[in-house]
Amino acid sequence: MAKAGSVGVVAPKSMHFEAPLALASGASIGDYTLVYETYGELNAARSNAVLICHALNASHHVAGVYADQPKNVGWWDNMVGPGRPVDTNRFFVVGVNNLGSCFGSTGPMSVNPASGRPYGASFPVVTVEDWVDAQARLASRLGIERWAAVMGGSLGGMQALSWAIRYPDRIAHSVVIAATPKLSAQNIAFNEVARTAIRSDPDFHGGDYYAHGVVPKRGLTVARMIGHITYLSGDDMAEKFGRSMRAEDYQFHYDIEFEVESYLRYQGDKFSEYFDANTYLLITRALDYFDPAKATGGDLRAALAPASAKFLLASFTTDWRFTPARSREIVAALIANDRDVTYAEIDAPHGHDAFLLDDPRYHAAVAAYFDNIAREFSG
Amino acid sequence: MAKAGSVGVVAPKSMHFEAPLALASGASIGDYTLVYETYGELNAARSNAVLICHALNASHHVAGVYADQPKNVGWWDNMVGPGRPVDTNRFFVVGVNNLGSCFGSTGPMSVNPASGRPYGASFPVVTVEDWVDAQARLASRLGIERWAAVMGGSLGGMQALSWAIRYPDRIAHSVVIAATPKLSAQNIAFNEVARTAIRSDPDFHGGDYYAHGVVPKRGLTVARMIGHITYLSGDDMAEKFGRSMRAEDYQFHYDIEFEVESYLRYQGDKFSEYFDANTYLLITRALDYFDPAKATGGDLRAALAPASAKFLLASFTTDWRFTPARSREIVAALIANDRDVTYAEIDAPHGHDAFLLDDPRYHAAVAAYFDNIAREFSG
Repeated sequence: MAKAGSVGVVAPKSMHFEAPLALASGASIGDYTLVYETYGELNAARSNAVLICHALNASHHVAGVYADQPKNVGWWDNMVGPGRPVDTNRFFVVGVNNLGSCFGSTGPMSVNPASGRPYGASFPVVTVEDWVDAQARLASRLGIERWAAVMGGSLGGMQALSWAIRYPDRIAHSVVIAATPKLSAQNIAFNEVARTAIRSDPDFHGGDYYAHGVVPKRGLTVARMIGHITYLSGDDMAEKFGRSMRAEDYQFHYDIEFEVESYLRYQGDKFSEYFDANTYLLITRALDYFDPAKATGGDLRAALAPASAKFLLASFTTDWRFTPARSREIVAALIANDRDVTYAEIDAPHGHDAFLLDDPRYHAAVAAYFDNIAREFSG
Repeated sequence: MAKAGSVGVVAPKSMHFEAPLALASGASIGDYTLVYETYGELNAARSNAVLICHALNASHHVAGVYADQPKNVGWWDNMVGPGRPVDTNRFFVVGVNNLGSCFGSTGPMSVNPASGRPYGASFPVVTVEDWVDAQARLASRLGIERWAAVMGGSLGGMQALSWAIRYPDRIAHSVVIAATPKLSAQNIAFNEVARTAIRSDPDFHGGDYYAHGVVPKRGLTVARMIGHITYLSGDDMAEKFGRSMRAEDYQFHYDIEFEVESYLRYQGDKFSEYFDANTYLLITRALDYFDPAKATGGDLRAALAPASAKFLLASFTTDWRFTPARSREIVAALIANDRDVTYAEIDAPHGHDAFLLDDPRYHAAVAAYFDNIAREFSG
């Protein structure tokens, strides 16, 4: 059962697109499907729509539960729902699974109509900008000419930022949480280790493992374990696990001795059961490539000049993946463009993952911001 | 050719031990060999001997070069040599390869005399304390009753610390660089991901890969890539690599795009050619287990109470693996014991790896400290 304040039972929908979508790589993809969910009601003026963009391992299932899966709660259920910071009594909220992901939208696991076989390694490399373009098409088909807000955390925040640059007339507010204007060398390095673990798994078969009836489970497990370390803060790990052991004393073996090992192995295992390895490569690559200032010679101010939206940025003090300093780079570039920007730097212990948790100060900041948005179209 | 100031051409020696060594695990190992090198001359009073302890991937080859391998320079050659901070004109320096390592001392690759086959998975789990005990036996056989100093960085620093606790009468100075009194949950987590990569490589064969004529090269590569990220600071990576690319522009593939990917793959590959996977498990486990205050209910002051040596501790501001705060825990516990302790916190950009580099302020601090030691036995 969903908690009070949840949107309750929801159901995914899907939309098919026949016209090819031109991708940043120069390739294009036609005949694709996007899976999405909606919560709340689109108002008559079509002015209350909010797009929620997902990060690496999430999906269109932002809020609520499925009738047949009452424990499958949306990944941002604490943020989106009646009376929640993004209040579905006032907003029409759309969650969409991105192209190349593995939760229903067309991706490497999908059958390529041209070959009759799964795309696998032949699925095109896509970028944040490609996702935004695909989302824009979905918006048009939903009759949403302009989003009241586009919002996301981490990679989702990059999509919200890209929307503001790419479709300035179609976004009133951009809500960019725990993001960065571009990945650092260390960020790319962690992604590359994860990809190497996947690529070098003998069950990867160059990305065409579907035909072999296997998945590169070992590589995916390691990839997820690495990711998990970077999502948590060192302090958070210390508090959660410290050096707590399974047994009373050292057992002198290489099996699980410490609780943190048990936790990581469990997280890695669980993930490798449901996530697609090609999607992991694809999404981490989209992260690596994101760099809107690349087109303006590294000048982020110039890159953001086309944006006309108002902005909320939020970051978390213990996030060492995308530190507050990275959010402040975006804030500074927006201010240099004389844009309307609100910035909340939240003192929270939970590292990068904090954007998914319901820290009261964080949620209060988002709620206040969305209150103001609601006043714009209702008042 | 060795640079001026190098000890020049050196040659490893080996020493065999028949008497079983009792290990922390309760097991024991007999019939083992330790490989070591020495530089400089032991004085008549046998009072000028310095033991250098190695970390994860290093060995007894601390300084100089081999006659037949003029490019194989010792791993701490910038620290140890005539006129160098640990001056071999004044000190008799000993480097020893630890039990369980893979550079000549008895380890998992060695043939178990009981079975006639490589130890592999049956090699006992060893600890920092076990290494120190083995080093103490070597010292006795070399006629060194008391070290002028025991010195090491990272895991080597833990050995120097353990010497002071375990053999207070046999160590005049303990030089503990870039170390920690115990690993954090995050430290253990990184070790466990590396071990999982190795263990889950199909070529690992439960640790008995020697019999199969293979090595778990893929797992070792990933393990080393992870390690490398933690040895460098984020700033250092940013400065060294930033987002520099191989090609002019994005190629939209999963091969090398960024220089940092190339660097990591190269480091991982190179390492997997020479390092033994079982040794990687063994040494990371010794790191996990190190926790001298475990025996005193978590009280580091009590754990260090037996130590009578004088101490030099050094840490590096950008070391996020073992931060300066961890060194300061040791300093505080020593001060609480009224011990003589010198502490240098070096503002250096190179992360954990800084302990291997010749930062002038760092080397000056070590040189000054060893000057004082030399005065003790010469004056």
